[in-house]
Amino acid sequence: MANLVLTTFDWVPDMPRGHVRDIRVRWALEEAGLPYRVESVPFHHRSAGHFAHQPFGQVPWLTDGDLSIFETGAILLHLGELSGKLMPADPRGRSDVKQWLFAALASVEAASQPWSFFKFSGDTDETPMRAFFDGFLEARLKHMEEVLAGREWLAGAFSIADILMADVLRLVDRFEGLATYDHCRAYVARATSRPSFLKARADQMAHFAAAD
Amino acid sequence: MANLVLTTFDWVPDMPRGHVRDIRVRWALEEAGLPYRVESVPFHHRSAGHFAHQPFGQVPWLTDGDLSIFETGAILLHLGELSGKLMPADPRGRSDVKQWLFAALASVEAASQPWSFFKFSGDTDETPMRAFFDGFLEARLKHMEEVLAGREWLAGAFSIADILMADVLRLVDRFEGLATYDHCRAYVARATSRPSFLKARADQMAHFAAAD
Repeated sequence: MANLVLTTFDWVPDMPRGHVRDIRVRWALEEAGLPYRVESVPFHHRSAGHFAHQPFGQVPWLTDGDLSIFETGAILLHLGELSGKLMPADPRGRSDVKQWLFAALASVEAASQPWSFFKFSGDTDETPMRAFFDGFLEARLKHMEEVLAGREWLAGAFSIADILMADVLRLVDRFEGLATYDHCRAYVARATSRPSFLKARADQMAHFAAAD
Repeated sequence: MANLVLTTFDWVPDMPRGHVRDIRVRWALEEAGLPYRVESVPFHHRSAGHFAHQPFGQVPWLTDGDLSIFETGAILLHLGELSGKLMPADPRGRSDVKQWLFAALASVEAASQPWSFFKFSGDTDETPMRAFFDGFLEARLKHMEEVLAGREWLAGAFSIADILMADVLRLVDRFEGLATYDHCRAYVARATSRPSFLKARADQMAHFAAAD
């Protein structure tokens, strides 16, 4: 029996609430129906013990018995291997899920994260480099739009790859970056209407609100 | 018996030569001693067939029989599971390798790639956002410096996680971004002195030179 503990911050500012990365792990745990509990570490004072679990001082991490895992991609992969509900059983389906799991991070978030930093900063930069980063994201979204035009989920049934990709695209959508990408926007709406996501988001909001 | 085919571009401009991402896959294949062959797709005209294997029109991808995999992280994970030489056998060691594989992409390259775009562009931007991206990379390198102060490789023996992390840090080093990070620089030197890397780089350089 898995003994799963998800660790996140005790508090974060208002802006990132609903988008702290523990939501990806909560979402997968809810989707799989795996029992878990949530623990907190201080946002303001990051201890040596925190860095022992997460070497960059970020959150989340997951412990499963004496195994401790950081990086949401790695945590989702672990949960996908633990549960039959988060990825298919056949080798080809599993391989597809894994490549899309990496693609969500290394192809899409690699472009959306720098873009989101411009947005978070107040969106006043109008330099050539800003235009470059806009174009970098546009190129990736254009291809995602083609991918999502032809399928409901990235790799057959809903999987950990969709949790990660939808969470990445959800932040783009928050800043209206999906306005001209109908299939991407519909995909985010489809994914985030799942009860597992709604529960995960409500739980994250309640967790941080409890610390105010 | 694996039937591995690595596909990359037929040609690229001088600047990225030695850094095209097929080098990560070549490196792992050489390290594992797995037989493979290399095929090319046009850099200038990217066909529907290309997008069928790599939805973003990038390289590389790997086929293993009728399995086709894109994303270097996913390809390295596949090779790690195929060979006993690229990751440890025990569950904890494998979990450590996987979290560092994701960390190389989502924690370190997520910061080094935007930084490298400023470098590639001629390094003339002096905006507040440029300072932000510099600080983002510095924060990640500071933590990597602490991690690498205490170990030769990321997860026990040399693994696919080191191939990915060393390749990510190698590009930072090319632009002298590791000047004040002795342990990171030594790690890159240690990883890239391996015969498997030297062969991979020489093969990539020869592959693109043949098309000139």
